[in-house]
Amino acid sequence: MISGSLLLFLFPFAQSARLLANSSDAREADRLAITKVFTEQTVAWNRGDIDAFLQGYWHSPELTFAGSSGVARGYDGVQARYKKNYPDRATMGTLDLSDLEIRFVGPDAALVLGRWHLQRAKGDIGGIASLVVQRFPEGWRIIHDHTSVDAETK
Amino acid sequence: MISGSLLLFLFPFAQSARLLANSSDAREADRLAITKVFTEQTVAWNRGDIDAFLQGYWHSPELTFAGSSGVARGYDGVQARYKKNYPDRATMGTLDLSDLEIRFVGPDAALVLGRWHLQRAKGDIGGIASLVVQRFPEGWRIIHDHTSVDAETK
Repeated sequence: MISGSLLLFLFPFAQSARLLANSSDAREADRLAITKVFTEQTVAWNRGDIDAFLQGYWHSPELTFAGSSGVARGYDGVQARYKKNYPDRATMGTLDLSDLEIRFVGPDAALVLGRWHLQRAKGDIGGIASLVVQRFPEGWRIIHDHTSVDAETK
Repeated sequence: MISGSLLLFLFPFAQSARLLANSSDAREADRLAITKVFTEQTVAWNRGDIDAFLQGYWHSPELTFAGSSGVARGYDGVQARYKKNYPDRATMGTLDLSDLEIRFVGPDAALVLGRWHLQRAKGDIGGIASLVVQRFPEGWRIIHDHTSVDAETK
């Protein structure tokens, strides 16, 4: 039988274990919510809907998108860049995002690293994407995107 | 003359203002500490010392470096990549990091966006760097680097 004093001794550990479990549950929920943003983006892209795809980005003038053509700034700038680079369904192709690695860097921020690939009749293209995502009242959104194209597929 | 009751009324605001000032002072100190990492990296690079330059990176197997040649993993992997791509002083050239924008995404993490440029006799090269930095007991360190080369200078 566990004595009263032993229970008092164990209590703080039980509390910590519960908090830890809650916190790891919360992170698991965050992880799922972040993954869902990218799943929804992929579904939108693959039905040719760039505007729905863009919902994954922070709707702010502070949004940034970096790549070999420089930095696009603001939601409108990023939207213009996508519409210029992907003017039609054939150029958009079929998007696959894979190998997503999510690293939390704060209570409301994470770094997501992954591979992107577009399967296209005119030639496949792909590379690495680094995405900084942040939690907002409306959900997790990409606040910065740095995308590069693989040297082999350029 | 300010009455006692007015002082009592103003006190909470004065407290908040002081806390705000302290917190903004702390962020200013963080900003300076982060900038110093890049200044020291630039100085090290420009004396041809890649090992000292690498001190700006997190000394961990979890460090990542992304670009058009894929993802280099771990401090050793990033070190190997730098030593392969920059085998001598002439290839290293003179580094200039400019337009650094620091955005805090958590108490101990920030996203740094900037331009890099190497002035070289064999031809200049440059582009955009996105760096995720994190606070460690030893100071701020880069935990992820995504570097791309400008389309024009490739």
